[in-house]
Amino acid sequence: MAWDVEGTKRRIQEAALAEFSQFGATGTTIDRIAKRAAVNRERVYKYYGDKAALFSKVVRYELDKLAEDVPLRQVAGPDDLADFAGLSFDYLKEHPDVARLVLWEGLADAGAVQDEAERTGLYVGKARAVAEAQRAGLIDSSIAPAHLVFLLIALAVQWWATPQMARMLATGQDDDSPARRREAVVQAARRLTAVGS
Amino acid sequence: MAWDVEGTKRRIQEAALAEFSQFGATGTTIDRIAKRAAVNRERVYKYYGDKAALFSKVVRYELDKLAEDVPLRQVAGPDDLADFAGLSFDYLKEHPDVARLVLWEGLADAGAVQDEAERTGLYVGKARAVAEAQRAGLIDSSIAPAHLVFLLIALAVQWWATPQMARMLATGQDDDSPARRREAVVQAARRLTAVGS
Repeated sequence: MAWDVEGTKRRIQEAALAEFSQFGATGTTIDRIAKRAAVNRERVYKYYGDKAALFSKVVRYELDKLAEDVPLRQVAGPDDLADFAGLSFDYLKEHPDVARLVLWEGLADAGAVQDEAERTGLYVGKARAVAEAQRAGLIDSSIAPAHLVFLLIALAVQWWATPQMARMLATGQDDDSPARRREAVVQAARRLTAVGS
Repeated sequence: MAWDVEGTKRRIQEAALAEFSQFGATGTTIDRIAKRAAVNRERVYKYYGDKAALFSKVVRYELDKLAEDVPLRQVAGPDDLADFAGLSFDYLKEHPDVARLVLWEGLADAGAVQDEAERTGLYVGKARAVAEAQRAGLIDSSIAPAHLVFLLIALAVQWWATPQMARMLATGQDDDSPARRREAVVQAARRLTAVGS
């Protein structure tokens, strides 16, 4: 039987995502990832290089999937950005590992990530779409495009960045369900971008 | 010469803040904190108990200072919340360690933090102030009070949660200075809370 390279790679990436998102890159080892994937550690090194390279590979793969699932290519008005924020929230709710991966990366950030040039493309396209909508007067233009996209993403990501704060804040609030949180995110995104307020 | 207990405690807490904010609670040890503070490890245990207790103590101390410096007790209108977001941003810019501390805690969160009841008080007061302003029609009321406070804090904290994303997004943007980021935060807070938009 031929060795199933693709299946093995997929198993390694899934194990790496689970380990990295739980413990961060510094909190785990190639050994533990190999064990979790039930493969030989030499195979992980062979396919992915060192731990930093594997981490970077997993981040890029997951963010590419997220960007495909929740695109932002054209903005016709505030509704599109409210949708973007709401769907980002939904995606992270389904895939909290992805939020955590980016947060670990952020805490370890020393001024540059691997493949920074390639990854930047994912973001620049979003900022450009927002800039075009601002120039066309379709959305408010008082916040610079890149900062606006960043803050829209912040509305969605923060629930996984500081879950303890969300929980403590909502003590005593009637409804702190995920659906209500999503409503808050969508409403906030709409208010951030509505024209003429 | 009498042993300077207060001075020693302060040195330990400063060393703990530096270690915890750089490496997280799991990424450092009482030994390393003691070394950094130039005290005997037994003294750290004696004053603070174990690592989890020391972490919790440092978080509470830093968040109490933050809440004192950037209070939110009464809200007369959107300007007060724009100020709150802007001053939170300023504080975290001066004290990025505090942002990182809360983010490490969030990544480790397992459903409860030490002293959760006491810490909740800091947040509940803010949500109450916002709820009162909403009832009085002084600010928009379409987002639940606790969620609104959470999102206002998110606008400020996210720059330290995902610095890599902020950097990549702003590639090609003319002005990504801290002052411009602050403007975006303040403007966003005002738009989130303005009446009648």
